[in-house]
Amino acid sequence: MELRLSVCVLLLFCAAENSNGGKILVWYSEASHWINMKPLLETLVDRGHQVTVLVPSTSLFMNSSEPSRFQYEPFDVDVSFEDLEKIFETIIHFFMYEMDFMNPFEIYVTFYDLMKNNKNITFKFLDGVVKSEPIMKKLKEGNYDLLFADPIYSGGDLTADILGIPLVLSLCFSLGNNLERMCGQLPAPPSFVPGAASKLTDKMDFSERLSNVLFYALQDVMMEQILWKEIDKYYSEIRGTPTSACELMGKADIWLMRTYWDFDFPRPLLPNFKFVGGIHCKPAKPLPEEMEEFVQSSGDAGIVVFSLGSMVKNVSTEKANMIASALAQLPQKVLWRYSGQKPETLGSNTRLYNWIPQNDLLGHPKTKAFITHGGANGIYEAIYHGVPMVGIPMFGDQPDNMVHMEAKGAAVTVKFNFMTTESLRDAVNMVINNKSYKENAMRLSKIHHDRPMSPRDEAVFWIEFTMRNKGAKHLKVQAHELTWYQYHSLDVLAFLLIIDLLLIFILFKSCSFCFKRCCSSYRHVTKRKIN
Amino acid sequence: MELRLSVCVLLLFCAAENSNGGKILVWYSEASHWINMKPLLETLVDRGHQVTVLVPSTSLFMNSSEPSRFQYEPFDVDVSFEDLEKIFETIIHFFMYEMDFMNPFEIYVTFYDLMKNNKNITFKFLDGVVKSEPIMKKLKEGNYDLLFADPIYSGGDLTADILGIPLVLSLCFSLGNNLERMCGQLPAPPSFVPGAASKLTDKMDFSERLSNVLFYALQDVMMEQILWKEIDKYYSEIRGTPTSACELMGKADIWLMRTYWDFDFPRPLLPNFKFVGGIHCKPAKPLPEEMEEFVQSSGDAGIVVFSLGSMVKNVSTEKANMIASALAQLPQKVLWRYSGQKPETLGSNTRLYNWIPQNDLLGHPKTKAFITHGGANGIYEAIYHGVPMVGIPMFGDQPDNMVHMEAKGAAVTVKFNFMTTESLRDAVNMVINNKSYKENAMRLSKIHHDRPMSPRDEAVFWIEFTMRNKGAKHLKVQAHELTWYQYHSLDVLAFLLIIDLLLIFILFKSCSFCFKRCCSSYRHVTKRKIN
Repeated sequence: MELRLSVCVLLLFCAAENSNGGKILVWYSEASHWINMKPLLETLVDRGHQVTVLVPSTSLFMNSSEPSRFQYEPFDVDVSFEDLEKIFETIIHFFMYEMDFMNPFEIYVTFYDLMKNNKNITFKFLDGVVKSEPIMKKLKEGNYDLLFADPIYSGGDLTADILGIPLVLSLCFSLGNNLERMCGQLPAPPSFVPGAASKLTDKMDFSERLSNVLFYALQDVMMEQILWKEIDKYYSEIRGTPTSACELMGKADIWLMRTYWDFDFPRPLLPNFKFVGGIHCKPAKPLPEEMEEFVQSSGDAGIVVFSLGSMVKNVSTEKANMIASALAQLPQKVLWRYSGQKPETLGSNTRLYNWIPQNDLLGHPKTKAFITHGGANGIYEAIYHGVPMVGIPMFGDQPDNMVHMEAKGAAVTVKFNFMTTESLRDAVNMVINNKSYKENAMRLSKIHHDRPMSPRDEAVFWIEFTMRNKGAKHLKVQAHELTWYQYHSLDVLAFLLIIDLLLIFILFKSCSFCFKRCCSSYRHVTKRKIN
Repeated sequence: MELRLSVCVLLLFCAAENSNGGKILVWYSEASHWINMKPLLETLVDRGHQVTVLVPSTSLFMNSSEPSRFQYEPFDVDVSFEDLEKIFETIIHFFMYEMDFMNPFEIYVTFYDLMKNNKNITFKFLDGVVKSEPIMKKLKEGNYDLLFADPIYSGGDLTADILGIPLVLSLCFSLGNNLERMCGQLPAPPSFVPGAASKLTDKMDFSERLSNVLFYALQDVMMEQILWKEIDKYYSEIRGTPTSACELMGKADIWLMRTYWDFDFPRPLLPNFKFVGGIHCKPAKPLPEEMEEFVQSSGDAGIVVFSLGSMVKNVSTEKANMIASALAQLPQKVLWRYSGQKPETLGSNTRLYNWIPQNDLLGHPKTKAFITHGGANGIYEAIYHGVPMVGIPMFGDQPDNMVHMEAKGAAVTVKFNFMTTESLRDAVNMVINNKSYKENAMRLSKIHHDRPMSPRDEAVFWIEFTMRNKGAKHLKVQAHELTWYQYHSLDVLAFLLIIDLLLIFILFKSCSFCFKRCCSSYRHVTKRKIN
């Protein structure tokens, strides 16, 4: 009781300090990144803060004319909707239909080319803000207390620096943990911290540790070539002085990492890295009446929820028929988010929806399993509600996310390009009938809920902390001021090695000198004796 | 409001789960370690847990016949009170009166001898528990849910392992962070993490980084010689199988580190390391009437609080007179905890006390400065209340603690053996009259208070978490399963080096072969031409 009371008093104290509310500028993002961000921003508005979101004129998911409790700061970008859509489609097509039939080298080269070719889009979006005088004038006049950004969308760090305001980042992961390691100085020993998207776990044998070391190295080379070289040039041009984008990102006061130890493998962290995985999760609300009726009609068998996420709406007719056949063989009722043509093999137990209230369905007591593409948002909703998963990962972090869930015993994965009616059906039956999957999902759910604060409350606390204190410098390690060789004490080790070699050299020379003297005396004596 | 409510609901949920209370076994400790532990144990009793403390028959600070809300489990040790007191006095005398006049090598050797000679005491205390059949029988029958220990007092890990119960450690620091690094796998790059007791800060130039690397190495060698070799032998004898004490300590579920970023320099941490510095701090209570009158008589000048801690009660007459002279020259009233003979030079502004309510005095609005030996408990009370300090550090972590406070601009240090009336007086005047010291103390106080949970609540949460979940395995990094060379990927790097060398060798041999073939053809052609 005392514990609860004192926490409440503490938070009351903090809330009181913030009673006037702060002014938060939010950097634009896209797709699941934006979906994930919204509930946190809603909470910030609830707590009396003014939230202003930068919205590009071309976006797949952001819309500045949508009624909202946020203020919008729209800006023009020289990219058409069709071009943007085409880019996303090309990337998704590569991951869904090409990658599985390539060797690792081809994958790496193709991915490298895809990223490199599309990097200009990043700059066109960034132009819309930092090269636009009216926008920058407005932002300066806005007197914001903080800039909040997902660093996957470049430029938040540059803008925060120009405006001279604190920066809070929110990030699920970067390829090979490149941003966290190189810019945030987060230690990630490759022996037990698998690189994000490496599909490795924290339990690695020699060959896996070797792969992980190479994966880190390759990602660092790729990021240097794709991102840092070009973006440093761009930032330097804007600032009029040599500027390192990674150093600017390193100035962030707080990194809100959207993972936790229910999903991620435990690893070293830093005081300004807060692990708030599941930041968007919330209790389930009642379902629409028609949907609730369908769910209740499942009886004891229960339901299966199926969605391939916000980016993939349709699959090929052949694939859709194969999936529908598998679902038709399940004793459960199935709710499938699918906006393509109705598959011919669709069973009477399966209903198609253009959109489903995914979180409310996952939190429904009748839900037995979740068939998912393995996006982090969906996985976290399943963890929150303790639902075992069947993963059909396709792109980005999805395959890696499913590796995490499989390693923790809460999921089975099937490969999109190689799955059959039987393998999909068997996978769903497995996670429903083998009790260990539900037990492990419930164990992860317990870990998720049993922490001192909910992830969203923790994120809100540190955002408000940064505003109250105009930064969070006392949480930043001194490593940011060191070069890479100083960080690893290589200069010290080199110095000690030189001293060692010098001592050995002196010892050798001394011994050699003594030996010569001895020999010379001996020869002298022997010679005299002979004479 | 929503934030506060949801935190309350979360904690209510956790509290409800613990409504029956757990059974906590507390390992014995001594001096400030025991003083620090008590308020946390009181809170655990308040929350309905049964707390049983192992108390040795010989102790300077623990007393099993003292009325208390804890249960005591007394055990016999074959050490007399006089012997124990003598050991502490010898150590304190070395630090207070000898060390300042020795070179670093002499200090190291003397300290090494002191520790080595006194290690048998550790085993005699440990004998009293693990070699005592009646005690071990009682502990086994006690069905404890958790063992709580300060690992500076060896054996808690062994006993938890024998009893098969989870282990929570509470630790301020170990010399050169040896326990945290070697057993807890806490990353501590020597380039920006100064070894505990090294008197370095996190801002180090080349020579300081060199010192830190050597300091870490020397501490590791010393700990291996003093502690690990002998204790591994002892543990192996008890367990009847080769046992590594460091590995047993590494099994701890949670490490409650009694520091935070108000006091310590920010550094890498691990998910099962919780930084709860100031765990014992609490708001000030009203002073005894006579003391309050004296404090009020100080007027606007205010008061200075002076204590050399629980271990040092008296100093030499000469030193006492020198200190009293300095205090007499202050415009403030001074409350000095001192049980020696009244110094001749004692001013009318100074009163001596056998004991002072230190926390209540530090929290008094009239308090202007705190003259302290630099113990972590006292420093945390000063941080809690935002009081600038003058340090007269003497032994253990005290000099290092004061380096931290000086680096953060909240203290001035004077050297016990070299201070004069003037230097002590000037130091006190400095921290009172130069506003930056008070401002920095208040800044640290703000950092201390402005966190999601109070340190004691956080410690209680993780102790209860460990009991509820019978451990906290999901927070433990996989590094515990790696050898040191695997951890640092040295086997992987060696493999890559060999592959590189092989490739170079093959390349060299191929070139050499081609070159020879070319030369041979050339010679052949030339020869034929000549012929």
